[in-house]
Amino acid sequence: MSGTLYGIGVGPGDPELLTLKALRLIEQAEVVAYPCLPGAESFARSVVAAVIPAEAREIAIEVPMTSAREPAQAAYDAGAARIGAELEAERDVVCLCEGDPLFYGSFMYLHARLASRFEVVVVPGVTSLTACAAAAGRPLVARNEALTVLPGPLSDEEMRRRLEGAETVAIMKVGRHLPRLRALLAGEGLADKAVYVERATLGVERVCPLGAAPDEAPYFSMVLVTKGADPWL
Amino acid sequence: MSGTLYGIGVGPGDPELLTLKALRLIEQAEVVAYPCLPGAESFARSVVAAVIPAEAREIAIEVPMTSAREPAQAAYDAGAARIGAELEAERDVVCLCEGDPLFYGSFMYLHARLASRFEVVVVPGVTSLTACAAAAGRPLVARNEALTVLPGPLSDEEMRRRLEGAETVAIMKVGRHLPRLRALLAGEGLADKAVYVERATLGVERVCPLGAAPDEAPYFSMVLVTKGADPWL
Ligand SMILES: C[S@@+](CC[C@H](N)C(=O)[O-])C[C@H]1O[C@@H](n2cnc3c(N)ncnc32)[C@H](O)[C@@H]1O
Ligand SMILES: C[S@@+](CC[C@H](N)C(=O)[O-])C[C@H]1O[C@@H](n2cnc3c(N)ncnc32)[C@H](O)[C@@H]1O
Repeated sequence: MSGTLYGIGVGPGDPELLTLKALRLIEQAEVVAYPCLPGAESFARSVVAAVIPAEAREIAIEVPMTSAREPAQAAYDAGAARIGAELEAERDVVCLCEGDPLFYGSFMYLHARLASRFEVVVVPGVTSLTACAAAAGRPLVARNEALTVLPGPLSDEEMRRRLEGAETVAIMKVGRHLPRLRALLAGEGLADKAVYVERATLGVERVCPLGAAPDEAPYFSMVLVTKGADPWL
Repeated sequence: MSGTLYGIGVGPGDPELLTLKALRLIEQAEVVAYPCLPGAESFARSVVAAVIPAEAREIAIEVPMTSAREPAQAAYDAGAARIGAELEAERDVVCLCEGDPLFYGSFMYLHARLASRFEVVVVPGVTSLTACAAAAGRPLVARNEALTVLPGPLSDEEMRRRLEGAETVAIMKVGRHLPRLRALLAGEGLADKAVYVERATLGVERVCPLGAAPDEAPYFSMVLVTKGADPWL
């Protein structure tokens, strides 16, 4: 009888966007795990800090920010080993994930390492995708439209190929790619269809036309491109 | 000082997937609105039935199930008029929406009719998209992958065009289109990459390979196609 690993989506940032299920599991947690940058606070942890039991054991998985795969993989190996030891000791582990665990979430690296040996349950959360749409006051998709979600680091060529024939497009992981993406979207005649959303649902949330966005976008930012004529009909 | 219209995502079905914010707003509601089929219970209402105040006034917007636009538009006109009257009387109105209001939600028809005159606030919810991925135990997207969400009613030609070059694909509104979609995906060599998910997070949830799915899929069903070799790495 090993413990169960829960991958829990904590939503896009506003602690009130936590689900009742996530709240219950966190409040009951004996062991809480989360990824973070070395020495930095975990964003997912900060969202639910007020409800983590004081006596819970915490496993911070320090993942170096690098595009090389090995250091990150070693960090997930070490984190999975610590989580595995708790599960073997018959303790459940609650792993905190920004937004939803399966939507561009690092939880999959833990799942890949632990799911063959332990029970894993994923609790879906509110994604940054719909949180940004709500902040921008724009529908994402309606009726028989398609939605395409693209990561900002895609090359210009890839990005253009995927924009073509797409309807609503959400671009994630914008960060330092913003000036390039702005130029690319302008080149495709989409400048006036694009909205920039920063830190949706957080106190410092910002929404503006892409043209007015800062050159240095923070990590928590997204671009929504609504190609339809009237986004509300 | 008119009232505020809240478009509230109640999540994919499990009442525990309601957010704390949605719960607070529903528990405080004076007026609760929701779409439903004529004479049928509203699914969104059923998810939160236990927390709607007994004294709340309810506005059921009966939307006929038809592909013709006029009858549905007339229903939203009438519903918007009733909601507008409450807002003018300085009462807030909470509109209940399955999943997230802006992700294929009918809330946009009310927004289109009321947002120019009243304050509208959208509260994002857990979508069926990530709920189905959680039920299937599959990541939706990772790293620099793209996600494409397509509606099942698209023509075969459209569907094929959009599947080409796509990575993870989620097909919504499967219903009676299931046999056609199954044949189409098999023809594209994607049969063994496709999972069928029915009524995710509800008591009767079902997950199986697309090949084993029923010919008559219910309204609440989705097909997830993960083209990557190993969905967990
Ligand atoms: C690694 S992904 C994680 C996504 C997360 N799992 C989710 O479900 O939303 C990080 C990206 O999500 C987006 N993001 C996350 N939270 C956000 C927020 N509050 N506002 C705007 N964008 C956000 C940004 O594009 C960011 O680069
Ligand atoms: C009109 S759309 C509404 C989507 C909703 N606004 C959301 O955010 O999930 C209805 C479609 O959502 C999908 N869906 C909604 N709830 C579901 C569930 N619990 N399980 C599987 N699919 C679901 C089905 O594909 C269904 O045909």
